[in-house]
Amino acid sequence: MSIRLGVLVERLGGQLMGDPNTEVFGIAPLDDANASHITFLSNPKLRTQAAHTQAAAIILSASNAAAIGPEYQGARIVADNPYAYFARAAQWFAAESAPPLAAGIDASAHLDASATIAATAFIGPHVTIEAGAQVGDHAVIDAGCFIGRGAKIGAGTHFFAHVTFHAGCEIGQRGILHSGAVIGTDGFGFANDGGTWIKIPQTGRVIIGDDVDIGANTCIDRGALTDTIIENGVKLDNQIQIGHNCHIGAHTAMAGCVGVAGSATIGKYCTFGGAAMVLGHLSIADNVHISSGSMVSRSIREAGQYTGFYPLAKNADWEKSAAIVRNLTSMREKIRNLEKTVQLLTKSLTDKSQES
Amino acid sequence: MSIRLGVLVERLGGQLMGDPNTEVFGIAPLDDANASHITFLSNPKLRTQAAHTQAAAIILSASNAAAIGPEYQGARIVADNPYAYFARAAQWFAAESAPPLAAGIDASAHLDASATIAATAFIGPHVTIEAGAQVGDHAVIDAGCFIGRGAKIGAGTHFFAHVTFHAGCEIGQRGILHSGAVIGTDGFGFANDGGTWIKIPQTGRVIIGDDVDIGANTCIDRGALTDTIIENGVKLDNQIQIGHNCHIGAHTAMAGCVGVAGSATIGKYCTFGGAAMVLGHLSIADNVHISSGSMVSRSIREAGQYTGFYPLAKNADWEKSAAIVRNLTSMREKIRNLEKTVQLLTKSLTDKSQES
Amino acid sequence: MSIRLGVLVERLGGQLMGDPNTEVFGIAPLDDANASHITFLSNPKLRTQAAHTQAAAIILSASNAAAIGPEYQGARIVADNPYAYFARAAQWFAAESAPPLAAGIDASAHLDASATIAATAFIGPHVTIEAGAQVGDHAVIDAGCFIGRGAKIGAGTHFFAHVTFHAGCEIGQRGILHSGAVIGTDGFGFANDGGTWIKIPQTGRVIIGDDVDIGANTCIDRGALTDTIIENGVKLDNQIQIGHNCHIGAHTAMAGCVGVAGSATIGKYCTFGGAAMVLGHLSIADNVHISSGSMVSRSIREAGQYTGFYPLAKNADWEKSAAIVRNLTSMREKIRNLEKTVQLLTKSLTDKSQES
Repeated sequence: MSIRLGVLVERLGGQLMGDPNTEVFGIAPLDDANASHITFLSNPKLRTQAAHTQAAAIILSASNAAAIGPEYQGARIVADNPYAYFARAAQWFAAESAPPLAAGIDASAHLDASATIAATAFIGPHVTIEAGAQVGDHAVIDAGCFIGRGAKIGAGTHFFAHVTFHAGCEIGQRGILHSGAVIGTDGFGFANDGGTWIKIPQTGRVIIGDDVDIGANTCIDRGALTDTIIENGVKLDNQIQIGHNCHIGAHTAMAGCVGVAGSATIGKYCTFGGAAMVLGHLSIADNVHISSGSMVSRSIREAGQYTGFYPLAKNADWEKSAAIVRNLTSMREKIRNLEKTVQLLTKSLTDKSQES
Repeated sequence: MSIRLGVLVERLGGQLMGDPNTEVFGIAPLDDANASHITFLSNPKLRTQAAHTQAAAIILSASNAAAIGPEYQGARIVADNPYAYFARAAQWFAAESAPPLAAGIDASAHLDASATIAATAFIGPHVTIEAGAQVGDHAVIDAGCFIGRGAKIGAGTHFFAHVTFHAGCEIGQRGILHSGAVIGTDGFGFANDGGTWIKIPQTGRVIIGDDVDIGANTCIDRGALTDTIIENGVKLDNQIQIGHNCHIGAHTAMAGCVGVAGSATIGKYCTFGGAAMVLGHLSIADNVHISSGSMVSRSIREAGQYTGFYPLAKNADWEKSAAIVRNLTSMREKIRNLEKTVQLLTKSLTDKSQES
Repeated sequence: MSIRLGVLVERLGGQLMGDPNTEVFGIAPLDDANASHITFLSNPKLRTQAAHTQAAAIILSASNAAAIGPEYQGARIVADNPYAYFARAAQWFAAESAPPLAAGIDASAHLDASATIAATAFIGPHVTIEAGAQVGDHAVIDAGCFIGRGAKIGAGTHFFAHVTFHAGCEIGQRGILHSGAVIGTDGFGFANDGGTWIKIPQTGRVIIGDDVDIGANTCIDRGALTDTIIENGVKLDNQIQIGHNCHIGAHTAMAGCVGVAGSATIGKYCTFGGAAMVLGHLSIADNVHISSGSMVSRSIREAGQYTGFYPLAKNADWEKSAAIVRNLTSMREKIRNLEKTVQLLTKSLTDKSQES
């Protein structure tokens, strides 16, 4: 598990300034790295730290490379996007150090005879795969996963232990589903009949594109009549809830604990901070960025950053502010009355001045 | 999987205007429906769309039926509550198209000899059922579920894959538990002893009524000394947390990501929007409706709609407003001072007027 | 399952006022207790209720013991911290009434030959334990759990059914992990490259101390390059999300639905109310208490109670207040203008007074 810098640059690009025969054995942060490591600099504020790193090599931008003087004597790899370069280099090391996985089906797995499993796929212990399901080449289905009737898992997709992937749902290639994720559970659809709730059968599916990552214990509901759609390259963190018939555009990313109510349509290249919430039947344009903890309660037509949470304060201060917030209406009324009175007073004074 | 309209009306009621021999093969939304479908209209804003639907039949109210002219030439089923009628019709189609399920216990399931399983129940692969547990007639326990010692599952209740139902807990008839739901986990009860936490054993149960649906990855804690109670007809969406000793009244519904802290008592026929939160030891009356994202921080004695979240804004605007919110106390002080000054000025001016 | 009061006091301390031979068979709240029970009083507001309890014995403080007169004729155990005493007494009863658990490995469990399982440990049905993992003395691993390669589980630690504990992670002694908890899932780390996301392999671990409880469906991410750390005595409720590289100090407790973004450093002896959220890369001092539903959006250097949520109101009132909040900036401007005008008016009136 080591690579020479020359080989690394051949694979991943970038301009090497230093000895191509220098060997690195892993990646470490600037301050933890030693002579066996390659490190990276993406935040210009860390230039001083970078100048003193013990790493054998550093991935950085041209401007940072120019700013760091000869104090740092290791090799440099100049890249347009050092953080993305670091990610790809780290993927190389991770792939090299991953334990080998023999393809095949564990004896304790329970597979319906009509399921189609690629010969290169791995099916772990205690997995259940129902009738007609398909698992593609080099897919990895870890221990205890459930794959429902007719579901389709694309090539190279990895389900960690304890994923639930319900009947009829589909995911493309190179996806990652983390433990406890539940895909294709029934949407929350009921008709109210004199106070009691009549369940509306949820007969749509969840259709997921390529290169989609879904976090631990995240749920995506199947559509009611039509499908829930997750486009290519979407990244969802843990504990997220996506309601039925949502449509999430390509390369949108959501941090942990986000909730999206049913039938929301979200554009491409959006980001959602942790615990952001989106109400149902809303549309959000491409390139919209929602701050953590914000409640999106109306459609957003224009790209940009949006926020809606209450500022944190010492509890005693919060209690005072909160009491006033509750009475803001009367506060506005007071201002209006003051404005009127001041106007009258001004007029009165002006009149008097003219009189005298 | 088709039904003649005459037969449908015999089963579900309503007044048929059209040929009772017309056959429909499924349900579709107004704009997706074709001549093989039945569709429904519940929102009057969609009347124009309804007039042009290709569906063979439409479920609608008397007033909507009157408002839509002869432009729509298919059959009409007039119902008091078209949305509930649609739900029931959809249930009929869903039941017809469901894959047949043979009763019995999968060979890979692990059942204690003292568990009582109805002969008509289905127990899937890799299920574990502990000592003394009972599973009722026609219950369905899908792959990988866990049912603890002495738990009771009522007739016709369906556990999707990977449900955890802990020792001593009970659920009535016709319930649905979705994947990853955890019922009867320990409540969060600790006594603080000089900074460290001493666990308080949680020895109550979770007792769930009939016709209760519980969403994927939703948790309901067992009571500390007495029980947590979920009454008949309650509907809980995904990712919900219900603390120990809560009592949720009949037919109350909660959308995804709601959290209810311990010992909260919630009335009947309430609704909670997504991500609403309820603090502990509060009481909420019947017919209370909490908006999404609201934090219920005090008891609510009166029916009605309640809201408490911060309005969304462009981030730059939020930063300005948030800074002011933090200083609302001083803002109120300024208004008060202005009021006093204006009063004095007014008096002074009046005095002067009287002088002159 | 009964204990004489004299024996209880020998085990747990405290001062017994009453017959040491009195036998109690369980613990119940003040108003539910009968002559077979011991009960406790920690809240002085319940003194009247305590005076009338039917319990055979009551655990209480010296001051409460003095305040309750001879009306209550049962035994009294005077303790410095009655609530902690109650917790320990309840633990004794719970341990006595727990069903016996025979050590050993269920035949349906799937264990790699290189895993090390203590002879006194219990491994339930359908468990999977991968290569090199270690399970300590008297540990209990319930049905369907997954333990990844090289993970270490300390002595006396209990995993309830359906816990996922990923490769390389470690937990100390006497921990409790509830069902659906996922420890060591990948952190949410991606580099953005022209709009698409490049996964950053997460190669750190989760290292958990002794006496840590983790709730149902709670997730803790592994570190990116270094480890995520949970110190001794931390208590996490259900549905919590802890991001990669967080460090949570000893004896900190978090209620349900809390989310902590990556690289947050949280002190010792903190408490977080339900659904509180902490943004990434923040530091929080020891002894900080965050109210439920609050969003911690900046570091907190000083101990104390902090709050940040919007006060609940009737929906119509909220709509008015929210509309004003959105325009707070202009409201502040109006106040400033009024202040100026009033100043000018005051000056003008004063000048006039001096003139006349």
